[in-house]
Amino acid sequence: MQELSLLHTIFTRTKDGIGTFRNMIQPLIDHATDEHTKLYYHHISEEEEQRLERLDELIPYLEKLIKEGKLDQLSDRDLSRLLSDLHLERFGLHNFREHLELALYEFKEGDVREQLNTMREATQQDYLKIKDIMAEMAERFSDAVPNRIAQSYTQDHDHGHDVHQVDHFHASQQSTPAPSSSASSASIPAKKGLTVGSLKQK
Amino acid sequence: MQELSLLHTIFTRTKDGIGTFRNMIQPLIDHATDEHTKLYYHHISEEEEQRLERLDELIPYLEKLIKEGKLDQLSDRDLSRLLSDLHLERFGLHNFREHLELALYEFKEGDVREQLNTMREATQQDYLKIKDIMAEMAERFSDAVPNRIAQSYTQDHDHGHDVHQVDHFHASQQSTPAPSSSASSASIPAKKGLTVGSLKQK
Repeated sequence: MQELSLLHTIFTRTKDGIGTFRNMIQPLIDHATDEHTKLYYHHISEEEEQRLERLDELIPYLEKLIKEGKLDQLSDRDLSRLLSDLHLERFGLHNFREHLELALYEFKEGDVREQLNTMREATQQDYLKIKDIMAEMAERFSDAVPNRIAQSYTQDHDHGHDVHQVDHFHASQQSTPAPSSSASSASIPAKKGLTVGSLKQK
Repeated sequence: MQELSLLHTIFTRTKDGIGTFRNMIQPLIDHATDEHTKLYYHHISEEEEQRLERLDELIPYLEKLIKEGKLDQLSDRDLSRLLSDLHLERFGLHNFREHLELALYEFKEGDVREQLNTMREATQQDYLKIKDIMAEMAERFSDAVPNRIAQSYTQDHDHGHDVHQVDHFHASQQSTPAPSSSASSASIPAKKGLTVGSLKQK
């Protein structure tokens, strides 16, 4: 049951993180002077609210499983569903880390930035932990979980995006292309004067 | 079974929409000249990829239910789970509509903008339809679905955000605060010179 306790700790921590993060960005929504900025942060806040709603169901379910020591007695269907829920929340952590990274472009200094950086690092660690736990569970319950689904639970979802592995706020944003392992981004035409703005005209 | 056929149509349409939308924004990722823009669109594209993965499971499941005419024979647990999955995809449509709206700020003219507008309107209509279908299903299967959960399936998730009800691209973004029904946004200090930038210094 150790993995369930660890998952419970991770989800409880990120649930607190959602509250902290939404409070941080609420002033950006309340005081936005243009609609794009308002929609942008409102959208992010709402996605985290949806994640919170899911965690409010999942955390008590995990508590029940831990209390009753029932993981090994779950039916194949319930086990498959649990892994599916965990898979969704693994993506949830991944998306949260990116929401935190996007907000770091807004808060360029001060205490809020430090707190965002701390939460980003903790979220990344939790994301990596949940990946390991799911790989172990898929292996352990391989009889119950179809191989195709188990594979999707252990896939790395970070293809094409290594931005979290560098402190890109210390790098020159103008002269340095985003580091990336994706094939598509290998063709970034850096310094060619092609901007997002110029794309709009096409 | 009419509602299942309608849901199948909606999810098949939005699945196609995901492919179209991701192709539209891929150039913004490939040719981004700063990391913020790159992360921003990459993040949106990845969230839609996650939605696509879910729809790739849900659509065949709906096809199976339609073919076998099994909706009324589903166990309470399976029915509850189906409603939970539909609830998630209702949010998925809501989020997709906002992704389309955010992209409309990037594509300010031309064919892509027209296509985005068409998809945005279709997505909004599908979102409203799925809300109605879920309300009917929650009512019809009220014995199987706990009241608390059924209520959450019929809640409107648009609180505090009416931006989709206006064509804000025809309005002056500088002088007109975003229309909103939320209490919090009633306090927007329009024209007070308080910008997102000034908030960063606090």
